Amino acid sequence: MKTLKVALLGCGNVGSQVARILLDDAEDLASRTGARLELTGIAVRNPDAPRDVDLPKELFTTDAEKLAENADIVIELMGGMEPARTLMLHAIGHGASVVTGNKALLAADGAALFQKADAAGVRLAYEAAVAGAIPILRPIRDSLSGDRITRVLGIVNGTTNYILDAMDTTGAQFADALAEAQRLGYAEADPTADVEGHDAAAKGAILASLAFHTNFDLANVSCEGISAVTAGDIAAAKDAGFVIKLLAIAEKLENDGEPGVSVRVHPTLLPRTHPLAAVHGAFNAVFVEAENAGELMFYGQGAGGAPTASAVMGDVVSTARRLVLGGPLGAETPTGHVPALPFEKVTTSYSIGLEVTDQPGVLAAVARVFAENGVSIETMRQTIHSDGAGTAAELRFVTHRASEAALAATVEAIKGLDVINSVTSVLRVEGV
Amino acid sequence: MKTLKVALLGCGNVGSQVARILLDDAEDLASRTGARLELTGIAVRNPDAPRDVDLPKELFTTDAEKLAENADIVIELMGGMEPARTLMLHAIGHGASVVTGNKALLAADGAALFQKADAAGVRLAYEAAVAGAIPILRPIRDSLSGDRITRVLGIVNGTTNYILDAMDTTGAQFADALAEAQRLGYAEADPTADVEGHDAAAKGAILASLAFHTNFDLANVSCEGISAVTAGDIAAAKDAGFVIKLLAIAEKLENDGEPGVSVRVHPTLLPRTHPLAAVHGAFNAVFVEAENAGELMFYGQGAGGAPTASAVMGDVVSTARRLVLGGPLGAETPTGHVPALPFEKVTTSYSIGLEVTDQPGVLAAVARVFAENGVSIETMRQTIHSDGAGTAAELRFVTHRASEAALAATVEAIKGLDVINSVTSVLRVEGV
Repeated sequence: MKTLKVALLGCGNVGSQVARILLDDAEDLASRTGARLELTGIAVRNPDAPRDVDLPKELFTTDAEKLAENADIVIELMGGMEPARTLMLHAIGHGASVVTGNKALLAADGAALFQKADAAGVRLAYEAAVAGAIPILRPIRDSLSGDRITRVLGIVNGTTNYILDAMDTTGAQFADALAEAQRLGYAEADPTADVEGHDAAAKGAILASLAFHTNFDLANVSCEGISAVTAGDIAAAKDAGFVIKLLAIAEKLENDGEPGVSVRVHPTLLPRTHPLAAVHGAFNAVFVEAENAGELMFYGQGAGGAPTASAVMGDVVSTARRLVLGGPLGAETPTGHVPALPFEKVTTSYSIGLEVTDQPGVLAAVARVFAENGVSIETMRQTIHSDGAGTAAELRFVTHRASEAALAATVEAIKGLDVINSVTSVLRVEGV
Repeated sequence: MKTLKVALLGCGNVGSQVARILLDDAEDLASRTGARLELTGIAVRNPDAPRDVDLPKELFTTDAEKLAENADIVIELMGGMEPARTLMLHAIGHGASVVTGNKALLAADGAALFQKADAAGVRLAYEAAVAGAIPILRPIRDSLSGDRITRVLGIVNGTTNYILDAMDTTGAQFADALAEAQRLGYAEADPTADVEGHDAAAKGAILASLAFHTNFDLANVSCEGISAVTAGDIAAAKDAGFVIKLLAIAEKLENDGEPGVSVRVHPTLLPRTHPLAAVHGAFNAVFVEAENAGELMFYGQGAGGAPTASAVMGDVVSTARRLVLGGPLGAETPTGHVPALPFEKVTTSYSIGLEVTDQPGVLAAVARVFAENGVSIETMRQTIHSDGAGTAAELRFVTHRASEAALAATVEAIKGLDVINSVTSVLRVEGV
């Protein structure tokens, strides 16, 4: 039986689990692969740092470059841009296939890396980069290759789903739910990348690239996080039969007769009957709409050492099988180009909350603004509060689909009305 | 650009949609495949029969054998055992790869077909055979190839899910829900294969074979349908926070220190919070438990022309890509052997309903029977009915996990007790 040399770069949360599986399940992996997978070393900055898993000391090295040079498969789990990028290129240059979970690097610089891998005839696999354990990239690329995907809606960030789910269940404000998530280890001390949607944006760009056979540039993702979502937004959504989720939405659209791709990340109202509404806690799910397949959903753990290691090892075994069987490899990645659509070109629905005093006058004035901007109202709900200072009313509108530009203009014009105290929330709606 | 000849055998519900996609999306498919996919003909019994899709008359032929001989890829969508089996072997013998959705044939005779395909170095792909549009076979075979799957729970029959969901929603009896499903086209005039679980059993055997790297023989599937499920069972389940689903359950277990695989199909109580409980109507879903990945779920349409055609075309494009790139093909199917476990060796939980008159005496007697058989009771609920004839009580027990043999013995012994009027239901429970 052939032996394939596997080098591991990085030994954190995920890397240590990958090392454990390679060592403990060696026999099983060999029977499934047709080759022995030999872990030749683990490159880390500090070999003496404490690890989650007890691993043989002699495997550790600080010479990542040398390790990568002498491997058939290099597993990059260092994260970040450098030295990950340089080491991956070094490995590819020496004829190694690369398995990575580095979403930030792929979203920022994937096109160049795929090209290098293709030119070198080696595989570059990255199932672990999106939605952790959930097999989603391979189904999109292979299983749906005979269909046309029209839309992908993903809950691809566990931290924000955990926070929004907690707010929905307990009625907590964002800051309290975030603090609790940090206490339980679901959110990092600096939660910016998760909470502001940057992590979801990178995954959205990768999903869009595969789903629409293009290289979607991360810079073209419109991104809005959840830090402005209030307990009031969630309560009002609940009252109307909705749940608020942070979604990465990738869509293929027509724009003046030409195809275009839009990717956006924002808090979104979903009907509570939508399959994504049942995704609780830190779980992830990707909902795919395709012309022939209809609606599909892929659900599972989006993060964590062992779950993400499962996705990494799936890529390692698939790559190894191909190396055993022979035949060309290649990055198997998108090569076409579909232009990115600016958010203004997209049609969405809005839920708009207004705090007003003089309601009859307001409703007429607001309705006029909607009409002037060509936006049609689907539902309106009014809630009246009375206190010593007088009577205030809250109006909540849900619109029909309209262009993002028309909706933004509508909100701007409403803000300018004398009769409005404040615009309390503007949230987008999907799945209706 | 290379041209690959594609022959279609059968032009029903799914076949006609496959033909439509091959003809209408030819340009898109070519760009994704790297080869033109030329539909060379469609073999049918009667070329003049009415079809769902308007297709060029000149494509139809009654000479399936000749068509299959001259193709690179043969798509078999005739269903049934013969002539499908002979034609597939004929195609393989002439060096064609085969894409099929024929679950009954694969479950009955898959091992022999895979062996022939492997020997001939051609691909035999069958994503459409399980759960229609849902990509499930490829994720299990490839994405989870570096993990160890421990259990698969599948809602893999849309007809029975539609009926049980309708019973759950409306309180209807089985016969009425079935009649309504037949009226709406969700159930066939002769519903036996669906309702008695035979269709789910074939899919369970295929899932088990892939998940556990073995050739699981359909004859070893324990199978119980839903025709005995009553409105009372569903109401009692609902009351206790459960929903009843027909599940195909495939498990890898230890049996006296040796691994064994169990596959069974039966109506199952699931907590309403379980992800599978949210699968409504005719939708399918497959829930996978793996050592590292944890819990995964794959959700989508399990039947229908266009959705199933999507899965078929995914296999066609993947196979064509491999033919373009070169390198060995092969059936990529299980080759190992893990013994099948008889149902008696499996541990499950039971929900048992009893109609009794004299409750205090009954409870003591029943509890003694459980204890004597080593089965421990998790919960007990009592409902008392009074009418002119006197007072009757219903007891509902849910047990902890115990061997199927111990549970069956318990039920037999309870039936023999004098104090029991009748055993109203025995249903298995999962997900607790």
